[in-house]
Amino acid sequence: RYFHFCKLPGRVMGIRLLRFTSVVIIVLLLVAGALTALLPNIKDDKLPNLRREPKPQSQSALDSFTLIMQTYNRTDLLLKLLNHYQAIPNLHKVIVVWNNIGEKTPEEMWNSLGPHPVPVVFKVQSVNRMRNRLQNFPELETKAVLMMDDDTLVSAHDLAFAFSVWQQFPEHIVGFVPRKHISTPSGVYSYGSFELQNPGFGNGDQYSMVLIGAAFFHSGYLEDFQRQPEAVYALIDETQNCDDIAMNFLVAKHTGKPSGVFVKPVDIRNLEKDTNSGYSGMWHRAEHLLQRSYCVNKLVNIYDGMPLKYSNIMISQFGFPNYANHKNKM
Amino acid sequence: RYFHFCKLPGRVMGIRLLRFTSVVIIVLLLVAGALTALLPNIKDDKLPNLRREPKPQSQSALDSFTLIMQTYNRTDLLLKLLNHYQAIPNLHKVIVVWNNIGEKTPEEMWNSLGPHPVPVVFKVQSVNRMRNRLQNFPELETKAVLMMDDDTLVSAHDLAFAFSVWQQFPEHIVGFVPRKHISTPSGVYSYGSFELQNPGFGNGDQYSMVLIGAAFFHSGYLEDFQRQPEAVYALIDETQNCDDIAMNFLVAKHTGKPSGVFVKPVDIRNLEKDTNSGYSGMWHRAEHLLQRSYCVNKLVNIYDGMPLKYSNIMISQFGFPNYANHKNKM
Repeated sequence: RYFHFCKLPGRVMGIRLLRFTSVVIIVLLLVAGALTALLPNIKDDKLPNLRREPKPQSQSALDSFTLIMQTYNRTDLLLKLLNHYQAIPNLHKVIVVWNNIGEKTPEEMWNSLGPHPVPVVFKVQSVNRMRNRLQNFPELETKAVLMMDDDTLVSAHDLAFAFSVWQQFPEHIVGFVPRKHISTPSGVYSYGSFELQNPGFGNGDQYSMVLIGAAFFHSGYLEDFQRQPEAVYALIDETQNCDDIAMNFLVAKHTGKPSGVFVKPVDIRNLEKDTNSGYSGMWHRAEHLLQRSYCVNKLVNIYDGMPLKYSNIMISQFGFPNYANHKNKM
Repeated sequence: RYFHFCKLPGRVMGIRLLRFTSVVIIVLLLVAGALTALLPNIKDDKLPNLRREPKPQSQSALDSFTLIMQTYNRTDLLLKLLNHYQAIPNLHKVIVVWNNIGEKTPEEMWNSLGPHPVPVVFKVQSVNRMRNRLQNFPELETKAVLMMDDDTLVSAHDLAFAFSVWQQFPEHIVGFVPRKHISTPSGVYSYGSFELQNPGFGNGDQYSMVLIGAAFFHSGYLEDFQRQPEAVYALIDETQNCDDIAMNFLVAKHTGKPSGVFVKPVDIRNLEKDTNSGYSGMWHRAEHLLQRSYCVNKLVNIYDGMPLKYSNIMISQFGFPNYANHKNKM
């Protein structure tokens, strides 16, 4: 039977067919070889402007964070800061909360200057509200949020370190700006910083809030924020202030512990003087600090108690920037 | 009937008896008055040398700590340090581990210079062993231990703060002296401090141990230490070194996290130059650091793996000593 089979090609097809078959096989092999040679080239980075689809698997939702930056009347600063923040390690996505009502976002210009390291989403708002940034954005995929004011520059080193600290304290607001409330004999609270008296728990000062304008916190708190008493939203809208104080109340109530963990920044800068818009930020208003003391007392009423707790823990990075920054005279 | 009763004294006893009774009553009243006047005086602090019994309820076992200080050939430093440490806030008791074999403890002198703020127990040892201080002393009543070398002075401010930090991180060794191990391509580990290369996890340095010669840790770890492989005790006895490295291995294995939390001391001093004994401490031996690298590798064998983990968290006290020590240029 074997010999019978072998004889078939020679006898049935003939030599012309044999040649034809050989040529076809050779051509196919050449084409296959050519394709194999071409494949690496298609993936070559030198090919211009192939729009890269964002790869959702590149930064796992657990190991990365979303930057939420609200902006009003400082688009020049926003763009400057976006160039900086878009390249921070472990960044997953940027959400820009666009409070310039009726004004076009810079999305076109942004895209024309692509590609960018991460996706940036411009969320157009209908009303200019301070609490717009505290929405539970559907684009938010990560457990961690980094919230930054649109005039604040924090170095990548500080952010990378603070993110690692947040991962160890995920239920806290981990950030760079500590503040406190103090009690007074009348029972009325006052808001301030280190220039205010120490609360008097042993040596040194204490803080009871970490401001969310330069901090990491768990995205779950944005969900929680949607479920607060109406009076909280009314207060924030009335003052166009205090959303950060409200968040600290929320977190403190939730954990029963100090709401924040303060990480001492090495390089934090306020860029508001650099803006061309002339707009210099809400905290310059005459009533700003008085409003914040007012908010503390209102929130105590709304929440029927003072949930904020004091802490005196100040965290810095071991051996950075100075590799011997913990050296002592021992 | 009432009148019948009234007539009885006059008729039955007579006037002499009535006078006698009155005198007795008056004398009794005077004596009672005198006793009442005397009672406060008996409690007066001016009364000399009434030995006070230690009150076990004065420092709750949860809110206080026990100082364990091992001493060898530096009794002058010991006594200097005891005067300092006996007054630290939240101290419950001092346990002195007396490694001066055959020598009398200074207990008599100590008692003659009383009263003291807390009880001090001198535990006479039979053999001069480094690991004597890691016994599970029956006198230990508190959850927290403060272990100090007998040549190290840490300020009360630093200790009060570090104790408050330990209360927030009770499963860690919270202390003032960070060290690290590094891997090498050969797989052999080396031990050192900041002068060694960074382990290379991002920016800056990392530590993987906090030495127990100036640290707070949970007394439960002394219990755990009694249940370690024999080879660990043999290693410590062979080197008269490395008990602290062994404790860090134990804690890291137990928690699965970095064993220590480093608190940057404001005022830590080594007093060994001040001793009259001429004895200058084990760490001056030529082989001291080589031994410690040797111990790291031996312990990895004994525990079948490297449990130590890196951390770069450095904790300082907010607003102390400088009330504005967190101020930034923002």
